[in-house]
This record gives sequence, structure tokens and C-alpha cells, in this order.
Amino acid sequence: MKYRLMTPGPTPVPEETLLELARPVFLHRSPAFRSLLAEVTAGLQEVFRTRQPVYTLACSGTGGMEAAIASTLHAGAKAICLICGRWGERWRNICRAMGVEVVSVTVPYGQAVAPEQLALALKQHPDAVAVCATLCETSTGVKNDIAAFGKLVAATPAVFLVDAISGLGCMECHTDDWHIDVCVTGSQKALMVPPGLAFVSVSDKGWQRIDSNPGLRAFYFDLRKYRDSFKTGDSPFTPALSLVRGLRASLSRITAEGMPAIWARYARIAAACRAGLRAMHLELFAAVPAESLSVAVVPEGISGSVLLDRLEKQHGIRLAGGQDSLKGKIIRIAHMGHLDAFDVLTVLSGLELVLLEMGHDLEPGAGVAAAQRVLAEVVAGQPAEV
Amino acid sequence: MKYRLMTPGPTPVPEETLLELARPVFLHRSPAFRSLLAEVTAGLQEVFRTRQPVYTLACSGTGGMEAAIASTLHAGAKAICLICGRWGERWRNICRAMGVEVVSVTVPYGQAVAPEQLALALKQHPDAVAVCATLCETSTGVKNDIAAFGKLVAATPAVFLVDAISGLGCMECHTDDWHIDVCVTGSQKALMVPPGLAFVSVSDKGWQRIDSNPGLRAFYFDLRKYRDSFKTGDSPFTPALSLVRGLRASLSRITAEGMPAIWARYARIAAACRAGLRAMHLELFAAVPAESLSVAVVPEGISGSVLLDRLEKQHGIRLAGGQDSLKGKIIRIAHMGHLDAFDVLTVLSGLELVLLEMGHDLEPGAGVAAAQRVLAEVVAGQPAEV
Repeated sequence: MKYRLMTPGPTPVPEETLLELARPVFLHRSPAFRSLLAEVTAGLQEVFRTRQPVYTLACSGTGGMEAAIASTLHAGAKAICLICGRWGERWRNICRAMGVEVVSVTVPYGQAVAPEQLALALKQHPDAVAVCATLCETSTGVKNDIAAFGKLVAATPAVFLVDAISGLGCMECHTDDWHIDVCVTGSQKALMVPPGLAFVSVSDKGWQRIDSNPGLRAFYFDLRKYRDSFKTGDSPFTPALSLVRGLRASLSRITAEGMPAIWARYARIAAACRAGLRAMHLELFAAVPAESLSVAVVPEGISGSVLLDRLEKQHGIRLAGGQDSLKGKIIRIAHMGHLDAFDVLTVLSGLELVLLEMGHDLEPGAGVAAAQRVLAEVVAGQPAEV
Repeated sequence: MKYRLMTPGPTPVPEETLLELARPVFLHRSPAFRSLLAEVTAGLQEVFRTRQPVYTLACSGTGGMEAAIASTLHAGAKAICLICGRWGERWRNICRAMGVEVVSVTVPYGQAVAPEQLALALKQHPDAVAVCATLCETSTGVKNDIAAFGKLVAATPAVFLVDAISGLGCMECHTDDWHIDVCVTGSQKALMVPPGLAFVSVSDKGWQRIDSNPGLRAFYFDLRKYRDSFKTGDSPFTPALSLVRGLRASLSRITAEGMPAIWARYARIAAACRAGLRAMHLELFAAVPAESLSVAVVPEGISGSVLLDRLEKQHGIRLAGGQDSLKGKIIRIAHMGHLDAFDVLTVLSGLELVLLEMGHDLEPGAGVAAAQRVLAEVVAGQPAEV
């Protein structure tokens, strides 16, 4: 059976990237590694939309988030965490583990945090040192208005930390223009590399905060070490060089296409997928959906886990379900990584077959046809309905 | 030109391990990943000589060291650091970054820390919460007497943290029998996997300390999270799964040979290399040499960096030089990773050719012949002189 990985991380990796990983290792304290690091850093800057260096850490995305917290904050400092799902909660949990006092701004799962909520929190907590937000909340499929948040935070002394792990590289995220002071992403989502790398950029305001942090307690996650080593083109610690080589291959693909074209392509894929889901009488879960994944509510009377199991066992299509309190209640379909509109059409086809089998009321072909109509509209030069 | 990586990390990786890295990624929240993790954990336990689980972290070896410090210590606690080179200094630097008070027990580069020094420090500092030591000090090639240290620490309330990154898997290191409370290693040395993974085991005494740590300030490096996730066979954070798959392949190779056979093989390689270096009139740098690498002093009047450059450019052999104050003064030859006695014979051959060219006084063939005699002695059933 042909296998299709359509989970929102890890995502499918291009073949040429996988082959890079199989190349023999070499010494990282060498001109060859410095040249590799310079090349991927330039590519990452284009993806991040930043003039600042983007540092490559050997760790998961959570490690990158911890580097942001550990470098800018200290025990007893106050941070505002904007929480609309599991990954917003991750910010809060890291802060608490580091002894940071957390002001939680929450909305129910499926909703986005409103900029007005942040404005109020900033007013009530002028002593907040940082604001932590999530570009795409992968657990619910929600997109937050990072641009609006950034404008609000920029007018205060606080630094703006953004988890852009799930989304940066396929949906718009303008690190510099949106006033993101520490932007974090990981390798295994839109960047189309296997898991194991995190990427972090820091603004001038971010560095001012880090350099004046009175209680920085970190070593591996002390971003100053990455800045210092970067002066000679080096990595402060042994880099995961096979993955960095893979990254170079995936970044070549990304920079050849160009970010604006990539954003438009994934927006089209997302629009087609959602039209298909609606036509199959499935409710969308996210009030403000991200371009990087679509999340549908599992219909009443159908078991979400049986649905996902059948989809994988009968059709080789692997989607993600809900986590924690959303377990069995939602299905999540990735629109990031090495996949295209035809892959999403395939998901809709498989989903239709399984839903029909499970007694869900739908017209065979309705989902794929609706998706196809969105793809055709774009061909005809009309804007995609997202 | 045929290229030979003979640096003490990263080390050569077997072809079948590299090919594992090129396989498509899959979802880590799955029975397939849990089965992979269970398999590599069992293999790591055999290498570590421990009944405890060995946790796999996505980070460099330094990250594993930070996990050991961050989990067992807190700001204001006292740690005794046994320092005989750059990696002992790394323990000290991580401790200081975390606000830990450090008692440094130092010896000059090239010497091993004496157990008597540790005994005295433990007597002078009965309030020490941890003792940090290095199995093989890669920067100088020195082996420390971890078994003797462990016996001393076991008689106190302190926990014993060992950086076994450079050595574990090719030289003896008995985690349980030597009373190591937190043992750390990395993927890119004796375990023959590209860099990007660290491995950490914790003893019962280690867990008692961690569970009663009054000021644990970590999230990604909080070892309790790894213990908790391991109960369901999971990784707490997204694992670097391509590298974990590669690890499975390398561990198959290791467990098929068996640790006693591996220790004997690398001891023989080390003995042959050292006999060869001596026969080429090179002085050995380490007073107590580790089996995982040999370190020779660059002869008076010869530039160490020119020597290494010529070896790489003319013969494709990449050795490591000295770091920091030892830059240009020593050369370091790995005896770990996917290499054998014939690879070391090759290094000696190339080294002879370059040293002759640079005017060093030696008899052509003396080095390789001396090494070969050691190899032949072993064939004849006589013990190797290490």
C-alpha cells in the first residue's frame, strides 16, 4: 500500500533532502561546515523575513521555545501568555518551569486570541517583560493575528516571543515587519526536514532584553552563545550536521519557489480542502483557520479514532486526531511539508470512502468535486475563498 | 581522493546506519515509534551496563550534561567538578550558568584527576550535592578512574554525574557497578551515529535527588519528563526520529559484537597506535591514556596546523588538533566509531609520510611496523600492551 503522511508534523520530506541525510559525516569545526551554516542561515532569513541571523539549534521546537524564555526571562519576571490551545499552554508550562510568573490570556479551543485581550493585559500588567504567542495553534488549527499583537507589544517595553513552529514557511509570518523579537520554528513542519532542529531569530530589542537579563540561567539554551559563535560562522555546540545538510536541500526548493508563491499555493490548498470538507457535511473547528492545516469536527455518532484507523489501514493515509480533551473529536489534515493540492484531494477521497462506510450522510464525490472547483477557480484567475 | 574521518567526534558512521537516515519520516505518536524506542533503549542499556532506562534526548552531548545538572542541582547548591581539560571545564561552566556553586578540583592538562583529590574535596565539602567527572577527557586523551571516583561518591549523599560522551561504547564504563548516578553520552562518538542525540541514564539515588530537588528550573532538560513519557513508551518531545532509526542500526552492530569484545578490540587498536607513535619518536600527551583516542605531542620545530593540513590535503586523512591553549601543540587520533586497526595503520602511514616531508627524524616504516607487531602479538594470544 502506498503510504501518505498528512499529519501537521512531522510532514513529508523531499527525496533529495532524505538522500542528503545519508551522506557521510564530516568534522563541523571546518570551512565546509561554516559554508554550509552560512548558506542555510541565508535561506532561513528569507523564510523568516528577517535581516537578523537565524540560529540553528540541535533540539525539538520546544527546545527553541525554552531558549526564547530562558534567554529573555528569569525567575520572578512576568510574562503574558496568549493561550488558545495546547501550544499556547506549552509557553505557559515552560515559563512556570523556569519560575516565571504567568499572566494567562485564554480563549476556548477553536477560537483565536483577540488583539483587544492582549491590549487589556498589557494595560493591566505594564511590568510584563514578555508576551508569548502562537502563530498557528496546531492543536486546533487556529491562526492568531501576530501582526496585530506585534504592533501592540512594540509600543511597550515587553519583548514579543512567537512560536511559529507550525506554519512559518507555508503561511505568512513577517518576523521583522510584525515586530517579533524572538521567532522560533522547527525543522519538521513547513521546512520539510526530519525533526531534530529548531531555529531562532532575535531582534535588536530582543538582544537588549537578553543582554540586560539579570537572571539568565541557561547554557545550551543561552542564545548569546549562538550569537558569539556565529561571529566566526560556527555553531557553539556540536551541530546535528546531517539534518543541517538536509535543510540546505529543502531550503533550495523553498527559495527557488519564493515565499509569496509558497504562501499563495498553501492558501489555495487550504481553501480547496475546506471547501471539500464542507461539501462532505463536516464542520470546521477553527474560527480563524491557519493555512498550514485544516481541522474538521468528527460527526456525531462516529468514532474519531476508528475513522483515523480505517483511513490509515485501508488507504494508507495518516492524519492526526485531537490531543488531550479533543481526543477522538477532531481530525487534522496538514497543508505543510512536501505535499500539494493533489495530495489533499487524495485525503478527501479517502475520507469520503471511510465516512460513507461509517454511515455519514454525504453525496459520493461531493468533497473532491468541491475541492476541484476551488482549484479550477484559481486557474481561471479568480481569488480562492479561504 | 579517499577521505578518512579520524577525529574523536564526529566519527565514521556505518553505511547501513546512514541509509536508515534516508528513509521517509513517520509519525512519532505511533506504535511504530514506541517499538523503535523500546528497541534502542534495550540496546543502550547493554552499552551503558545499566538496568535503568536510558533516555534519548534530541540535542548535542552538552544538552545531556545540562539535563544532568538542571535536574539534580539548583541555584545555590554546591557541586565538585573534577577538571583535567576542556570537557571538565564544560561541567563547571554549565554549573555556573545555572547558578551552582562550583568547587573545582583541577590537574594540569595531560594528567588524570587522582581519586585522593576527590576524597579530600568530599571531606572538605560534605555539603556537596553532586560530583561531576569525565570518563575520557577528549581534549587531552586522558582517562579518569571513574570506578574509584564512584566508590568514593557512593559513600556520601552526593550524586555522581559522569560525562561519558567520548568513550562509552568503546571503552569500559559500567554505569551501575561504578555507582554512576547520571551517565551521559552522545550519538556521534562510539555509538557511530551522526550528531544530534544525547543519552542519559539515572540511578535510584539520582532519582531521589531529582525528586527532592527544591529548585529544579528546566523544561526540555527536566529528566522527570522523560521518565514520565517512558511509562507509555513515548518521548516527551518530538524525537529526532531519523537519527533514532540510525541508532537502531548502529546498536545492532554493537550488540552483535558484544561489549567485552568491543572493549578488547579498541584496546588493541589503541595499543597498536601508541606503539606506532612512539616508534615515530612522538611523545604521548596523556599520562593515563583513554582507549578511545591517542594524543601525540607535535615535535619541536613542526607546526601542528601545517601537519594536519597536509595530512588532509595530501592523504585525505582528517585528524583533530588541540583546542584553546593546546592549539597547534597536539594531534588527536580517534579509536572510536566505525573504524578498525587497519584504519589506524593508515593514519600512521600518512603521518609518517608527512612527518618525513617536514623533516622530523624517523625511520620510514618504523611506525606502521611497530603497530603491526602489536596486532600480531594479539593474534599470537599475547596480551596487548596498552
